Amino acid sequence: MTDTLHPLDHATRLIALGEGHYRGRLTAAYANMVGPFGGAIAAVVLNAVLQHPQRLGEPVALTVNFAGPIADAEFEIRARPARTNRSTQHWSIELVQAGETAILASAMTAERRDTWSDQELAFPRVAPASEVPVTATGGFTPWVANYEMRFIDGLLSFRPADAGENSQSRLWVRDQPPRPLDFLSLSALADVFFPRIFLRRQQPCPAGTVSMTLYFHADGAELAACGTASLLACARAQVLHNGFADQTAELWSADGRLLATSQQLVYYKV
Amino acid sequence: MTDTLHPLDHATRLIALGEGHYRGRLTAAYANMVGPFGGAIAAVVLNAVLQHPQRLGEPVALTVNFAGPIADAEFEIRARPARTNRSTQHWSIELVQAGETAILASAMTAERRDTWSDQELAFPRVAPASEVPVTATGGFTPWVANYEMRFIDGLLSFRPADAGENSQSRLWVRDQPPRPLDFLSLSALADVFFPRIFLRRQQPCPAGTVSMTLYFHADGAELAACGTASLLACARAQVLHNGFADQTAELWSADGRLLATSQQLVYYKV
Repeated sequence: MTDTLHPLDHATRLIALGEGHYRGRLTAAYANMVGPFGGAIAAVVLNAVLQHPQRLGEPVALTVNFAGPIADAEFEIRARPARTNRSTQHWSIELVQAGETAILASAMTAERRDTWSDQELAFPRVAPASEVPVTATGGFTPWVANYEMRFIDGLLSFRPADAGENSQSRLWVRDQPPRPLDFLSLSALADVFFPRIFLRRQQPCPAGTVSMTLYFHADGAELAACGTASLLACARAQVLHNGFADQTAELWSADGRLLATSQQLVYYKV
Repeated sequence: MTDTLHPLDHATRLIALGEGHYRGRLTAAYANMVGPFGGAIAAVVLNAVLQHPQRLGEPVALTVNFAGPIADAEFEIRARPARTNRSTQHWSIELVQAGETAILASAMTAERRDTWSDQELAFPRVAPASEVPVTATGGFTPWVANYEMRFIDGLLSFRPADAGENSQSRLWVRDQPPRPLDFLSLSALADVFFPRIFLRRQQPCPAGTVSMTLYFHADGAELAACGTASLLACARAQVLHNGFADQTAELWSADGRLLATSQQLVYYKV
């Protein structure tokens, strides 16, 4: 059974121990420099909500606070619907390992209705994925191998001479092997950006996301319609101040739909 | 004693019932169309962390999930330091009224160190506060009277003919009566923007913030140095889709320091 699972589904698999209580373990495939890839953590935390029998509607918001390191071992997740309204539901989620809180998260699910909609942000004018070569990402941290990345700009070189005054990265990206888009994979994809401090200085340093908030602007059917096509992922810092940098990001479908927007706070030490 | 308090301090006052356990009640001065002003809610929730005897450092991130309505009555708040690291701390906060969770929040506090910093986002080129007339905000909802607003653009008229294709608002804003800037007032100021759906359609409709995340890019001393000067507050929606709109916002000091950035998800029904 496990052998036929996509690596992301393998990594984010949860075993139910009771209602809203799960056991999980991220896989070596999604290892980062220290602990697992934050995107895989976001996905497994969201999975605890997705699998909850009391869930109402689909995810519209997810906040993940990276409170402490996660060791390469089993952990438990508890997801609690703290408030259920007529068409919305608010979730409190906690991931505990060895008796300590490692992740504190919240999520909101909702039933959407078709209504007046508009996309204000313009789809960036970039070449389509088919015209951008696949970027060689061999030598990077393990989780990167789970993604096919086609960088347009803002690639990490770790050559200080490449350091510039802006931290924008834009890339076409999808799961590798390809996997139809859903809330799990979109949550992970929202964290594919290297810390902006690396890009600004083109030097490695201790850095890691401490909080990430993700808003979903599409429902499950709209995500499924994206199939396995690459998404356009764009990110930049607005300010890096005394050890904490922000990052704003957008994830677009190939046909220009803004599927998700996110904000991160990233610790750095230089 | 109460009479000498600033209205914001009066509204966000908490009575300790035990460690991390408080009783509070927002005031009529901060009433909104339905329930209290979200900014005052964010401030009172943060206050539970600020007043906690175990707090380490100062706020760097705050997420407030508006799970249910808050009635004009007392409530209780519990703030728990879920994880304390060497220089950072992660908080879980819940506001309960009449036995139901109304607010689910998380916060992160940290001790900052002076280190390599940079502000990438450019300070908007606008006239200084002294050259922008105070906007008459008489007929709006009660909480607005607690702020002196000087709109540069994106003012609500509720004349459908004024509806445009972008939802940007920029205004100089400060507490009224003036109050030296701190984390409490900055948290409230981060929510002074009317729902972007109002501006886009220039028509009222049911709408309200369901989740707000705020990152602080200044420490307490840097905020105090702003005194009672107006801040430049800028906000816009990126996408409004089937009942939920996002909003990104920035709060700048008069001399061009990016003090806070925020992201909201706002429910709307049209």
